[in-house]
Amino acid sequence: MITLRGAHALRDADVILTDHLGPTGQLAQIIGEEAVADKEIIDVSKLPYGRQVAQEETNRLMVEHARAGRRVARLKGGDPFVFGRGFEEVQACAAAGIACEVVPGVTSAVSVPAAAGVPVTNRGVVHAFTVVSGHLAPENPGSLVDWGALARLGGTIVVIMGVRHVAAITAALMAAGLAPETPAAAIQDGTTSGQVSVRATAATLAEAMAEARITSPAVYVIGDVAGL
Amino acid sequence: MITLRGAHALRDADVILTDHLGPTGQLAQIIGEEAVADKEIIDVSKLPYGRQVAQEETNRLMVEHARAGRRVARLKGGDPFVFGRGFEEVQACAAAGIACEVVPGVTSAVSVPAAAGVPVTNRGVVHAFTVVSGHLAPENPGSLVDWGALARLGGTIVVIMGVRHVAAITAALMAAGLAPETPAAAIQDGTTSGQVSVRATAATLAEAMAEARITSPAVYVIGDVAGL
Repeated sequence: MITLRGAHALRDADVILTDHLGPTGQLAQIIGEEAVADKEIIDVSKLPYGRQVAQEETNRLMVEHARAGRRVARLKGGDPFVFGRGFEEVQACAAAGIACEVVPGVTSAVSVPAAAGVPVTNRGVVHAFTVVSGHLAPENPGSLVDWGALARLGGTIVVIMGVRHVAAITAALMAAGLAPETPAAAIQDGTTSGQVSVRATAATLAEAMAEARITSPAVYVIGDVAGL
Repeated sequence: MITLRGAHALRDADVILTDHLGPTGQLAQIIGEEAVADKEIIDVSKLPYGRQVAQEETNRLMVEHARAGRRVARLKGGDPFVFGRGFEEVQACAAAGIACEVVPGVTSAVSVPAAAGVPVTNRGVVHAFTVVSGHLAPENPGSLVDWGALARLGGTIVVIMGVRHVAAITAALMAAGLAPETPAAAIQDGTTSGQVSVRATAATLAEAMAEARITSPAVYVIGDVAGL
């Protein structure tokens, strides 16, 4: 699912900084075994530090290799500009005066439903969709998401990183007026050969996901869209 | 910006149905001139009919070629599952008993801001973003978008197909409580060599876009995100 532009960037690189979320295991398939052998591959997910320090170390490595005249590719999994740290890495380069280009990829919030036959809009019915992080429960004081306002918006709701809190999230949406019979679907490991999906309604989604043993990474969609 | 999986699907096809939104001009670059010469390329954007009939004709052609034992690729530009007709084409195949696979691509709503240095979320500040069609003005009785609810949601707002109505849209958002000083940016022809972008605020976006002569296709983003 990497783009041709992404594959070219990897092929042109002298150093590739990768982590466990990226398709590191498929590098040889993407650019060829000989090309991989030519490059320095640094797995920054294995940096032996806490989370914040590891990010600083990743930034430092990018800058250090670029300053040494090497072309550096940073291979990220997920979408580093959606609830990710992509922008922080771009800022680190900018602060160091290193030119960089962002090569966007396929984002799971839209592509996973699409590949499972669920469009996130519906011509004539739904002209908006919201992608929201479900990593905090609605009742968590740290939550930045106004689930009530989201229920009242009337668009499709796409939740990522929300498997654990699906029962609380659907309850919060329904408490704010979302119709319990609103169609819903959950997709685990979307676009891979291991893809699993379940159809349900807002009211039954949590139970359906538990029955189907849906685990992370998964996306769920709630809305009046045709594929549901 | 096509994915390797998309390029493989084109390479494996006997017939490619394309239209003016897709990268038809780059087919030779994507799969090679010899491969292109081998295939039947049908430009369905040039079907000499009205819009609705043309869609039915596209569906008919897909099914007809598949039934004749050919492998058919449908190359779409934009994101056919975001305000597009991708799902209708999948349904047409399903109704005809033709197996099909959706190969998702890079969606402009997220990738265009990312490539311009604008992440649509902001760790610790914004944990939701809404993608909305701006093709109808807020005061249009046919509008399905609740701009007031969107302003109150507090997430990032990404408007596509909204160049013409940007003044009315930003006015509607501010009337519903969106802070006039909320950062904003517009990006035209994103991820191409002709990319043009402007930074502004919710209050000044319409004027800034007019001054920079931003035209379609363009995406604009309004929100408390770090790249703005």
